[in-house]
Amino acid sequence: MDYRLKLLQRLARPADTKMVLLVLDGVGDLRTSEQPRTALEKARLPNFDALARRSSLGRLVPTTTGITPGSGPGHLALFGYDPMLPETDIGRGVLEALGLGIEVRPGDVAARGNFATADAEGRLTDRRAGRIPNSECERLCAVLNDRLHQQRLSGRDLGVEAEVFPGEAYRFVLMLRGAGLHPGVADTDPQKLGVAPLAATAEEAPAESTAARVRAVVEVLERAIAGEPTANRVLLRGFSQTPSLPQLGDLYGIRCGAFAGYPLYRGVAGACGMEAVPCGKTFAEIVTVVEERWQGFDYFFLHVKQTDQAGEDGNLDAKVAVLESVDADLPRLLALEPDAVAVTGDHSTPAPMKSHSWHPVPLLLHSATCFVDDCQSFGESEAIRGAIGTIPARDLFGLLLAHAGRLQKFGA
Amino acid sequence: MDYRLKLLQRLARPADTKMVLLVLDGVGDLRTSEQPRTALEKARLPNFDALARRSSLGRLVPTTTGITPGSGPGHLALFGYDPMLPETDIGRGVLEALGLGIEVRPGDVAARGNFATADAEGRLTDRRAGRIPNSECERLCAVLNDRLHQQRLSGRDLGVEAEVFPGEAYRFVLMLRGAGLHPGVADTDPQKLGVAPLAATAEEAPAESTAARVRAVVEVLERAIAGEPTANRVLLRGFSQTPSLPQLGDLYGIRCGAFAGYPLYRGVAGACGMEAVPCGKTFAEIVTVVEERWQGFDYFFLHVKQTDQAGEDGNLDAKVAVLESVDADLPRLLALEPDAVAVTGDHSTPAPMKSHSWHPVPLLLHSATCFVDDCQSFGESEAIRGAIGTIPARDLFGLLLAHAGRLQKFGA
Repeated sequence: MDYRLKLLQRLARPADTKMVLLVLDGVGDLRTSEQPRTALEKARLPNFDALARRSSLGRLVPTTTGITPGSGPGHLALFGYDPMLPETDIGRGVLEALGLGIEVRPGDVAARGNFATADAEGRLTDRRAGRIPNSECERLCAVLNDRLHQQRLSGRDLGVEAEVFPGEAYRFVLMLRGAGLHPGVADTDPQKLGVAPLAATAEEAPAESTAARVRAVVEVLERAIAGEPTANRVLLRGFSQTPSLPQLGDLYGIRCGAFAGYPLYRGVAGACGMEAVPCGKTFAEIVTVVEERWQGFDYFFLHVKQTDQAGEDGNLDAKVAVLESVDADLPRLLALEPDAVAVTGDHSTPAPMKSHSWHPVPLLLHSATCFVDDCQSFGESEAIRGAIGTIPARDLFGLLLAHAGRLQKFGA
Repeated sequence: MDYRLKLLQRLARPADTKMVLLVLDGVGDLRTSEQPRTALEKARLPNFDALARRSSLGRLVPTTTGITPGSGPGHLALFGYDPMLPETDIGRGVLEALGLGIEVRPGDVAARGNFATADAEGRLTDRRAGRIPNSECERLCAVLNDRLHQQRLSGRDLGVEAEVFPGEAYRFVLMLRGAGLHPGVADTDPQKLGVAPLAATAEEAPAESTAARVRAVVEVLERAIAGEPTANRVLLRGFSQTPSLPQLGDLYGIRCGAFAGYPLYRGVAGACGMEAVPCGKTFAEIVTVVEERWQGFDYFFLHVKQTDQAGEDGNLDAKVAVLESVDADLPRLLALEPDAVAVTGDHSTPAPMKSHSWHPVPLLLHSATCFVDDCQSFGESEAIRGAIGTIPARDLFGLLLAHAGRLQKFGA
């Protein structure tokens, strides 16, 4: 286990305090010549700004300098893990499954699938099956699951329990469940047209039997859709198992609740040992559920997705509007009187870039023991001169525990 | 390989963008009670300051806090390597050879040599041979090479091809070329007078045969100058081979050009896989060659030496003058429209110290995706409050790749 986590675990002590992490997904933004103010700087945020004046500000580097994280690594870092360690890696298949709200148990292998088309000679003609609509994807998945079911009934064992789940457009997830599965199976997607899909092969010896079972499953699946007009091939990528992360409850003796409206974030939080509490997608809806469950947890992870969506759309005004609506409900969250509150993002999604980026993310941290610095509002430029400085995102969790009086002294 | 480089290599993606690293050697300086402004702060730099107002500023820590780097480690860090890792170490002998513009091939062993004098009993009387002038050093080297040539003609094989190259004053480089050479040979310089030079010995078993060959070479060399009035001994230090650094082109799929007027910097850049492009020593001359070769590279390393020389001389006004002359030609560089530009130094050379120092070095980074912070000019004090913060110099390369759109997202 990461030595930082070992140290925190050793120092963790019980306390009757409550911690809140409010993640405004992709909140960090840019100032450029065309966009002289960031979303946080442009928005009217009287409640955040008032809180900032009683808080420490700073900035989080999501993974490491210059590296742009996906949502998985971005959140794992906020939950205290080093997302760059191999044992922390959440593979593509598992992440896709979590994003669809599919339960991934230890030992399961998940892969991301594409429906694709091939000509009579078996050469790929479209790796995305003409970007079929969701409804067609759902129909094809039903065909596949039906065939898998018949296969089981017929007694011809594939050596593994297989099921597909429809995703967006041409995408689906293949879930494999059974004894002795290993995720070291190479992608079957050749990443180009005019050639046949690759047969599943093992990337390392312990995955040989899994690869053989994948080949058998693919054969069944492709036979099932051989006559379909929209898609007659499946391409698989990112075979992976859920990482066995040290669980937050075991590490720190805390009860953690995840209040997120989107499956991916519930899934990542669940992989860390949080209880995913069903809730709506807006901050107002999320706070309502937090209010109801306030006695049930020590640590509350609240996830607001819409800031990231507005950034991905390049829509600064929409991002501003989301922030202003969160600000309006912030007093309800603060009225619960959490002992330590952190507000930040899992990464920046600058509107001018329409994508995640590597830029440090502003952080606001409030508790009775925070250093009240000179920052007058919650925003990127103010955060540069904040008391916390610019630190790796993985250090936030320990900082939150400290500010909630949940860490003993180190050494005498 | 360093895990940071592995990660960058994995994430690197092709892009049609150009990156410039302008190194103002030793640019960082001090504010003291006697010197209230640094060179950057005293100089009139309208072009740098205008660029700063559209850029991110920050500071680079050359190796790690409190450590003063030489030119080798200083530049290796700027090129993305961790100069403190043993595998990144460029030995003294190789560095001296690179500084003289001598080609060092993989497998060659280079050592730094001193001409010295000893009395009739062989006891050292001057480890620097009275600091002979360069012309005398060149004459003595010619005598040595002539004797080595005769030795070869005579058929008495030394088991190695040896050649000496004159350096400054009493210094020279011994280059050894041959099969199975190992750099683990101890210095023959006893570092004190009144004793004989040490016989070359192996520091580890695989260097035994190399040490034996060095002893044979030294015997030939000292016999050749036994009757010389100015120097009759050679002292050898820093036996080393060129490190096998991961090459920048292989790591990131980029073509790198080094535009440096001095051999040492061309040599270090060459060891990283850059093409050393012949050019003059002033920034104006360097930019002219960059203009000519603009289509030939993706990454341009420009090296200005004179800032360091002025710092070493303790001459603040000279340093200011160098900076102002660079500023005058900066628009020519910017007119090439590089997609990402970094301006910094490999270390500080504060005029009050007349030497390299450990102080963080100001950094200016400009691209379309940089965060435009509140800094109004390019200088040490402004850089403290810049958006990049204070980061290790080895992180600059990834940051430059990110700002040039050359890194994929990490994880999904």
